[in-house]
Amino acid sequence: MKVHGEHYRTIWLKPDQQQIIQIIDQRLLPHRFVIEDLRTVDEVAIAIKDMHVRGAGLIGATAGYGMYVAALHAPQDSEDAFMAAVIADGEKLKATRPTAVNLEWAVARQVAAIQAADGIQARIDTALHMAQVIADEDADYCRRIGEHGVAIIEEISRRKGGDIVNILTHCNAGWLAFVDYGTATAPVYAAHDRGIKVHVWVDETRPRNQGASLTAWELGQHGVPHTVIVDNTGGHLMQHGMVDMVITGSDRTTYTGDVGNKIGTYLKALAAKDNGVPFYTALPSSTFDWEQRDGLQIPIEQRDATEVRTITGLHDGELKTVLLTPEDSPAANYAFDVTPARLVTGLITERGICDASEEGILGLYPEKRG
Amino acid sequence: MKVHGEHYRTIWLKPDQQQIIQIIDQRLLPHRFVIEDLRTVDEVAIAIKDMHVRGAGLIGATAGYGMYVAALHAPQDSEDAFMAAVIADGEKLKATRPTAVNLEWAVARQVAAIQAADGIQARIDTALHMAQVIADEDADYCRRIGEHGVAIIEEISRRKGGDIVNILTHCNAGWLAFVDYGTATAPVYAAHDRGIKVHVWVDETRPRNQGASLTAWELGQHGVPHTVIVDNTGGHLMQHGMVDMVITGSDRTTYTGDVGNKIGTYLKALAAKDNGVPFYTALPSSTFDWEQRDGLQIPIEQRDATEVRTITGLHDGELKTVLLTPEDSPAANYAFDVTPARLVTGLITERGICDASEEGILGLYPEKRG
Repeated sequence: MKVHGEHYRTIWLKPDQQQIIQIIDQRLLPHRFVIEDLRTVDEVAIAIKDMHVRGAGLIGATAGYGMYVAALHAPQDSEDAFMAAVIADGEKLKATRPTAVNLEWAVARQVAAIQAADGIQARIDTALHMAQVIADEDADYCRRIGEHGVAIIEEISRRKGGDIVNILTHCNAGWLAFVDYGTATAPVYAAHDRGIKVHVWVDETRPRNQGASLTAWELGQHGVPHTVIVDNTGGHLMQHGMVDMVITGSDRTTYTGDVGNKIGTYLKALAAKDNGVPFYTALPSSTFDWEQRDGLQIPIEQRDATEVRTITGLHDGELKTVLLTPEDSPAANYAFDVTPARLVTGLITERGICDASEEGILGLYPEKRG
Repeated sequence: MKVHGEHYRTIWLKPDQQQIIQIIDQRLLPHRFVIEDLRTVDEVAIAIKDMHVRGAGLIGATAGYGMYVAALHAPQDSEDAFMAAVIADGEKLKATRPTAVNLEWAVARQVAAIQAADGIQARIDTALHMAQVIADEDADYCRRIGEHGVAIIEEISRRKGGDIVNILTHCNAGWLAFVDYGTATAPVYAAHDRGIKVHVWVDETRPRNQGASLTAWELGQHGVPHTVIVDNTGGHLMQHGMVDMVITGSDRTTYTGDVGNKIGTYLKALAAKDNGVPFYTALPSSTFDWEQRDGLQIPIEQRDATEVRTITGLHDGELKTVLLTPEDSPAANYAFDVTPARLVTGLITERGICDASEEGILGLYPEKRG
């Protein structure tokens, strides 16, 4: 999508130095737009772990490019040593964010592709090609999610006689979380671009405030009307008919339709159910966990309590971190929760829209049937 | 309760200058403990409106003392002019926080008492007496709420064989929100003081973070184990059996049991219901709205968007306000929501515990029957 009127993806190879990965350091948004070079697997691992990049699709794409950097820097004295180094780097990348299924998936896909190639140079070429395939697929899948999801928004718009369709979203499942378009935002961008009147309620999404800082920023850059709210607000809005639909993304969705996503998603799904507001999750197939039946078994990452105790924002033109709690009060920081399938109206995928159920999901992905 | 080991109420008359009200400027907590003098009705109105003081009971007590200041400064040339000024000041105070039923109630109670007295000096004396009665009643009611509510905690503790009872609370319905003890916290303090093991999950409560700044601070001062969480977290904790009960306060509860309280309370009540966790609201009788049948008709205050777009905390020993959103993103700030009675397990009042229903409430307050 556009930044200051120019088209960007969220990850790319440096135009004149193709061994260097470039990303937007999303920790500085919305206040500063800074592009960062990643030259080594350690730098890629830090970028994922410390959330310079975040979001299911972008984590996958970054791991894909990270495996290319791994191949570039692996010892070339023997194919065994080369593969051992590449696999070890893959393990290092996988350890950075245990809940992100796209990470495992991108690393496994790269390892399989690299292993299948013959000779070290071919393996490196394959890693580069596969990194680009993973990124292109991600962008293409998101574009298709937008094409499927826009039909729901169009229908609501028609029912409201062309009035503004109010959409609530949580966290950032926008283009910044993927390579382009986003998942939750893809139908919104598609609707906006077709001239359908939309307005987005943006949950700020504590503790890291990806909604207030990223979703608000990217919607603003694209010209989509939006309003930032605190995470506590959605239930009230739904009680008063001010939300027509909820669309969230997902970090991991079981093949039975349980949606693992940013902490607080479950609360919005409960409110949607209680008020008859449709609740959709938009996700590419790479986000499905084809092994896990029960969403409550998804391992939930616990992050540093500092993210709860403090927050960073702009003060006098500089980023400053302020303490919010008493000096000696402990805090806990669970990063995700799980929304049971029974609360999910439907899943918007690159293949179409389905029920959040094993039957619905396997109907779209018949090749995954037992 | 105690601050730095010394007993304080949240509002009192300056010991050597009884025409001056003193309060704790709660905007500076938990980082600084500052006592503020209030000398005029305008200063009292600002203290309420800008939330130097906040919380149902303390707003009522402050209005009570504010009416005493009004009487002190009203023109004394005629009783009519005196009463007109007192009544006008009462209207000014009532306009500061439209959702707070205690405010209306304290002002009305003062006006009636002052009007019933004979002669200007008697009216002033009555206003002083009534201000103290309102404050003392508030503290006493909270103490009794604690005595009734502790039975619920004791029962859970017994069922858990003496294991820690985990209690989630939202916002600050602690002693800082009342004159002493608090409502939601009163049973917790009572349990802690009896040696029952309790631990409190403290919702930070955006946008003003009364949980992170006030509830965490007062629990810490009293030595109650607690953990600060972001408002998104409660659902996840309940799904995983980590919450034994929820206790919140209320800003206004209908006589049918609908609970108006800090924005986000409704979301926690939905999660409690979904997970079979008991959800209690603790409130003194002054918080009941005996006119309103439907909670969704309670007027919801909209506050300045700046509270959502920014946050204040401690940086290098100084309070700093940081911007969290893009410069040009709008924000909305609804201060309260309404939890329907069907989601409330029970109400803990100074007279005992009752169902959140017209029958339950009128059972405790039979004098309010038709």
